[in-house]
Amino acid sequence: MTGRARLLVIGGDAAGMSAAAQARRIRAEDQLEIVVLEQGEDTSFSACGIPYWIGDLVGGRDALVARTPEEHRAQGLTVHTGTRATAIDTEARTVATADGRSFDYDTLLIATGGKPTRPPIPGLDAAGVFGVHRLDDGEAIRAAIDELPAGGPRRAVVLGGGYIGLEMAEVLQSRGLDVTVVLADPLPMGLLDADMGELVLAAMREAGMTVHTDQAVEEVLLDPDGRACGVRTDQGSYDAEVVVLGLGMGPEVSLAEGAGIAIGVTGGIDVDATMRSRSHPDVFAAGDCVQTHHQLTGEPQHVALGTHANKQGRVAGSVIAGRPARFGGVLGTALTKVGDTEIGRTGLCTTQAEQAGYAFSSDVVEGTTRAGYYPGAEAVTVKLVTETGSGRILGGQVVGGQGAGKRVDVLATAIWAGMTADDLAASDLSYAPPFSPTYDVVSVAARKASAVVRG
Amino acid sequence: MTGRARLLVIGGDAAGMSAAAQARRIRAEDQLEIVVLEQGEDTSFSACGIPYWIGDLVGGRDALVARTPEEHRAQGLTVHTGTRATAIDTEARTVATADGRSFDYDTLLIATGGKPTRPPIPGLDAAGVFGVHRLDDGEAIRAAIDELPAGGPRRAVVLGGGYIGLEMAEVLQSRGLDVTVVLADPLPMGLLDADMGELVLAAMREAGMTVHTDQAVEEVLLDPDGRACGVRTDQGSYDAEVVVLGLGMGPEVSLAEGAGIAIGVTGGIDVDATMRSRSHPDVFAAGDCVQTHHQLTGEPQHVALGTHANKQGRVAGSVIAGRPARFGGVLGTALTKVGDTEIGRTGLCTTQAEQAGYAFSSDVVEGTTRAGYYPGAEAVTVKLVTETGSGRILGGQVVGGQGAGKRVDVLATAIWAGMTADDLAASDLSYAPPFSPTYDVVSVAARKASAVVRG
Repeated sequence: MTGRARLLVIGGDAAGMSAAAQARRIRAEDQLEIVVLEQGEDTSFSACGIPYWIGDLVGGRDALVARTPEEHRAQGLTVHTGTRATAIDTEARTVATADGRSFDYDTLLIATGGKPTRPPIPGLDAAGVFGVHRLDDGEAIRAAIDELPAGGPRRAVVLGGGYIGLEMAEVLQSRGLDVTVVLADPLPMGLLDADMGELVLAAMREAGMTVHTDQAVEEVLLDPDGRACGVRTDQGSYDAEVVVLGLGMGPEVSLAEGAGIAIGVTGGIDVDATMRSRSHPDVFAAGDCVQTHHQLTGEPQHVALGTHANKQGRVAGSVIAGRPARFGGVLGTALTKVGDTEIGRTGLCTTQAEQAGYAFSSDVVEGTTRAGYYPGAEAVTVKLVTETGSGRILGGQVVGGQGAGKRVDVLATAIWAGMTADDLAASDLSYAPPFSPTYDVVSVAARKASAVVRG
Repeated sequence: MTGRARLLVIGGDAAGMSAAAQARRIRAEDQLEIVVLEQGEDTSFSACGIPYWIGDLVGGRDALVARTPEEHRAQGLTVHTGTRATAIDTEARTVATADGRSFDYDTLLIATGGKPTRPPIPGLDAAGVFGVHRLDDGEAIRAAIDELPAGGPRRAVVLGGGYIGLEMAEVLQSRGLDVTVVLADPLPMGLLDADMGELVLAAMREAGMTVHTDQAVEEVLLDPDGRACGVRTDQGSYDAEVVVLGLGMGPEVSLAEGAGIAIGVTGGIDVDATMRSRSHPDVFAAGDCVQTHHQLTGEPQHVALGTHANKQGRVAGSVIAGRPARFGGVLGTALTKVGDTEIGRTGLCTTQAEQAGYAFSSDVVEGTTRAGYYPGAEAVTVKLVTETGSGRILGGQVVGGQGAGKRVDVLATAIWAGMTADDLAASDLSYAPPFSPTYDVVSVAARKASAVVRG
């Protein structure tokens, strides 16, 4: 090619803009042109913050925008907002947009993100049913709450008990709505073991939520105006002015699929650790639209999370700009809260360990977040999954009061490093009465796991 | 020997009782007799909780006793309280006590703990000058505060700015005393780098403490009754009704020294990783009285801390009872708080890294404890010390608002596991807006360190 090369990015959120920014750090404008196509009006926004904005914990929509299109432009990026890509031609190396334009590229980065899981339930597309995906969704839910007539009923049904479901249930409750959560599964937070999920379910109910488990949603009920007014399951009907979808997030790959770019078994775009498409070497992909791998098992994974999107974008941007980089995979670390209960998990739960073919034990210990005698000490339960023989930690789960959740990072670090339960039990974790008992609950769990595995 | 062997333990606190309890778990009473000599009336108490008891955050003295002598006895241990050991005869294998008795042993465990550093300052032994070591000290300080005449001055001088000094300053202030902290050094928390120590100094002053740095204490001032009424340094005199020593804790080894048991260069009893004396194979030692080693450098260390005491005691008890065990060393992990500022450190600070002969870089990053837009997000500063070339993390320091401190455990785990900054930057740490920005500040620090070291 003559002149400067062009990197074309589809999608202006975490992954796309991280890639663009990183490529720009390495290559100046005279070496690499970077053009971003974003279908909405916002770039680099925090989808994870939407529930808290709805809950009035965040000042406003602008607070969730980490960097505006103008700010990106000031860094030497060309950003076209309101510009929806409609087709990729990998032969001609062009991307067509809804407004009839065509953009050519030398290297393409697909960062089309995720899409909320929408099962084929009648009425799911009605007014009054909301996803929690883009800032406009947040705006719409806020408006729906604001428009509830004074003195009238204020009821919400949340479908799903993953972290979006939990967070939405919490903030809707904080806005004065009666909240009913409907789960298809027996327990919330599917990637927790049942004993830990029970703790979460108890916390939800203690927080005043109505939780229906093991119920299949059959229909969104509509009022005469065609607006959602409730949900009917195989076991009951629940009235609601607001219905929220928290059923998880799948990869948005329609553009890639249409262009014949390889899709992996998880449904995400199939990329290697440099975020390069395995089928099209001049196409990269990053963020919620890709398939990644589990750091421990090497198995393909799809995890929609801002941290991975940012890191993957950064890797893609580096590689595209000519600097080697690799994405190291994921452990499925997740953290959320409901009421005062913090919930963290990382690595493999027992179901995953079994599926992955490990021989393992699991151990549960209970402790406190601070020295037992220190004010504010709260209960915390830690579960470890440990490989038999090697003693290697495979997974960890934490449920407890304030200060419990971030302890999952110690477990994630230990698993990432390949530590055994022995190693972790021996390691020099901090102690002071306002922060932990003499033995942090993580140490106690590691010691228990180590004793079982090693005798 | 015929019949059952006897383990004699000198010292009934963390190390001694952990050893005794662990040995009992492994060996029943008909196999091993376990006798504990404790000079005071309490066993297994939390010295670390004393400041918080003084600060009325802890219900009472009993709350700080994890296990009473009676509870230990119920586990098959013979516990003699009020029984001060005065001499060890390693030839005869006997220990003499102040009340004229003699206890023989097959194996001896010395767990005599630490002793507050008391420089040769005139007046330091006067009434009104308090150490913070045993529960009786806590009782005495509480009484001194309670006895302050109504309407009279309430002033305290705290000597020293280590964690005991900081915690005492905080709780005395919370009890309504005007607190002056006098430091011999330019900054508090000597095992922090200066830039991080500055943050702590600022936090102390912001909390309303008067802090005098770089001042040598020359005399404790006495009133006509011989009671402490202030402190004179080389630069000024400070009136006080209460004077508290927070000058650190050395090893209490007079008994061991008197018996010719080898003492290490740090002043602690010289033991191997099984906690066995290097000079006397039938003598073990554990806790604040021993010399241990740094996990990273292998160099001898003395660190007085309940966690190590508990772990070392457990190791000693295992080995004495015939089950192999080793103590893995320390990283010098420490955690404390002053006001709303949490302070953690682990591994090597730059001074220590230099002394240990490492080529290293250091990097400081600033972040927030929660997503910037989430209520309660507070500033947090993280400093990493990283080995040049290998990229291995050598040390970490954290200073910041609520939630900052325990992040030091991620760094301690990473250092323990030998992780590089690259590894840590890649690892899958948790993210949710109430708990961290998309990139946790620890990840940001690791990424910055990795970029510097690796280019």
